[in-house]
Amino acid sequence: MEHIEDSNEYKGLNVNKGIEQPPIVNPYLKTVRKKQYTVEEYAEGILRGNITFLSQAVTLLESTQPHHQQLAQELIEKCIPYSGKSVRIGITGVPGAGKSTSIDTLGMHIIREGHKLAVLAIDPSSERSKGSILGDKTRMEALAVHPDVFIRPSPSAGSLGGVARKTRETVILCEAAGYDTIFVETVGVGQSETAVHSMVDFFLLIQLAGTGDELQGIKRGIMEMADGIVVNKADGNNIDKAKLAQQQYINALHLFPPAESGWKPEVLTYSGYYNIGIPEIWDMIRRYIDFTKENGYFEKKRARQSFYWLHETILEELKNHFYQDPDVRTILKEKERQVIDSEVTPFIAAKELLDTYFNQ
Amino acid sequence: MEHIEDSNEYKGLNVNKGIEQPPIVNPYLKTVRKKQYTVEEYAEGILRGNITFLSQAVTLLESTQPHHQQLAQELIEKCIPYSGKSVRIGITGVPGAGKSTSIDTLGMHIIREGHKLAVLAIDPSSERSKGSILGDKTRMEALAVHPDVFIRPSPSAGSLGGVARKTRETVILCEAAGYDTIFVETVGVGQSETAVHSMVDFFLLIQLAGTGDELQGIKRGIMEMADGIVVNKADGNNIDKAKLAQQQYINALHLFPPAESGWKPEVLTYSGYYNIGIPEIWDMIRRYIDFTKENGYFEKKRARQSFYWLHETILEELKNHFYQDPDVRTILKEKERQVIDSEVTPFIAAKELLDTYFNQ
Repeated sequence: MEHIEDSNEYKGLNVNKGIEQPPIVNPYLKTVRKKQYTVEEYAEGILRGNITFLSQAVTLLESTQPHHQQLAQELIEKCIPYSGKSVRIGITGVPGAGKSTSIDTLGMHIIREGHKLAVLAIDPSSERSKGSILGDKTRMEALAVHPDVFIRPSPSAGSLGGVARKTRETVILCEAAGYDTIFVETVGVGQSETAVHSMVDFFLLIQLAGTGDELQGIKRGIMEMADGIVVNKADGNNIDKAKLAQQQYINALHLFPPAESGWKPEVLTYSGYYNIGIPEIWDMIRRYIDFTKENGYFEKKRARQSFYWLHETILEELKNHFYQDPDVRTILKEKERQVIDSEVTPFIAAKELLDTYFNQ
Repeated sequence: MEHIEDSNEYKGLNVNKGIEQPPIVNPYLKTVRKKQYTVEEYAEGILRGNITFLSQAVTLLESTQPHHQQLAQELIEKCIPYSGKSVRIGITGVPGAGKSTSIDTLGMHIIREGHKLAVLAIDPSSERSKGSILGDKTRMEALAVHPDVFIRPSPSAGSLGGVARKTRETVILCEAAGYDTIFVETVGVGQSETAVHSMVDFFLLIQLAGTGDELQGIKRGIMEMADGIVVNKADGNNIDKAKLAQQQYINALHLFPPAESGWKPEVLTYSGYYNIGIPEIWDMIRRYIDFTKENGYFEKKRARQSFYWLHETILEELKNHFYQDPDVRTILKEKERQVIDSEVTPFIAAKELLDTYFNQ
């Protein structure tokens, strides 16, 4: 992960347009004395599209130091008026579905149309030391060296709420820096798809051809979130199998009620590795965006997402405050045991815990 | 709804075994002076299977008066040791799928095997004055007059959390009263299926034959909760259509990952009205119960459900406390507007609201 960040900063030097350079960070030094820029300097750098300032700002945002947090929040407020104009695309699929290769190929197609692309990720299980789902840079070799691309791995391990928040704020910074297409990648095995789904305009599910075994990793409910399902590895001997899977997904989608957007999720086949069917995927996404902008759903969904994150953040904080309360912690485990062993009802145990919390 | 309660109380008189009679409630009088029983008297009545005491205890439980609430909680604590031994079955389906007729026919089949059946419901939108999903007694004509059956409509309108809690507590009272089979009915159009799903052992989805239109009312995600799907109205000219729908559901279920229970959801056809295929549905439920008791999932799921309700209740109360705070209420609407109009991020607005709440 340091490797990628490093590489982004290197790229930053290439596209830099005469603004003062932040120093290159040596990833092997635990503590690096960086020049502290002011919020105004960061904002100016980001609005000029300087990838190094953007990268450092995201690092600030991910920092746990209150001073950095404060700076980051002020910076985000400054960037908000310049944000919101991108197309945000969530991409999920089980490990092995070929997400990285697909992002590389689809991303390059989008870049060739003249877009600027940011690739982010949400993976609460990732740790800086162990790499993350975007850590395997070799699978995004074309994007990784392209000056119009900003790649950023998932924020390091933490609560899903915390990780999702940082990614959502990173989207704002990227948009202010002129990235008009944002990918948010996640692995389709945990809770993180819901978080990604609630911050993107289009949710793309990558599947593999096959008759069941390959699908076991995909969590229940994810298929119903998808605005588009794309069956990868439709090449060579695998084409018939992919077409069969496509038909199965089409049949399955028929059983679901129509989405509120009015959009009928489409199922396509493609090959990320052999670059087959990629323009069709991008075309589907564009048609979805046009369609939902036309019928008003696009803006409605974005407003609803903001509303969701407001109340989700409040909830997260109320929970933290409660469960970190020392008196609650003293009796929580015992109450949980009593409930699991059916000695008291969950409601009575909850009341006792809440009384402990509020009546101090 | 008064009609059903009334009828239950009447039935109560029939099965009463010499315990002192509570007075019959006249539903046309706003205030009825009832004799107040002690917790011990209620518990004794319930444990003897007296349907009138059970019915009054549920009314206590549904009361908003703190004194009644207190009594009800003490009563539930007394009943807990005698609860938990029933099979709890959630039943959902869109209006028109034939839920009431199906419950009547399936219920009578179960009764004839010697079981005692309680039929409850969760419908947060119901109001006492407007009737509820169990209000149409004419569709459960066999069950409604049977002495081994306790029918109780959904608690009256309120938050889903509150309604679900009351139903879950009613389950405990019913079990203590000797009901060994509990149906919890809900309409497959809202959030209430998740609540029902989290309090039952088996979740049954009633569907109609057809190619799409009839399914539009079923909420996304419900199909994936089902342990069994049953296609109703498989009779006469409709049999082929029902068989086709059955095959479509079987195909669709293949695309889902296996459930954690290890159980493969089954799809059956039947006719509630003509009483065709009913024993097969009950047989499927019994096999599921045996299977999950065998592999330990049954107890695991119940413990997890209790754990879920403990934390869900806490969450609900934390939210209530926050959103009813006068200072929070003063600024909430304006903060929501700012967020929806992208003037501030959801996170900054959340922080301002939380500061208001905690720093008073």
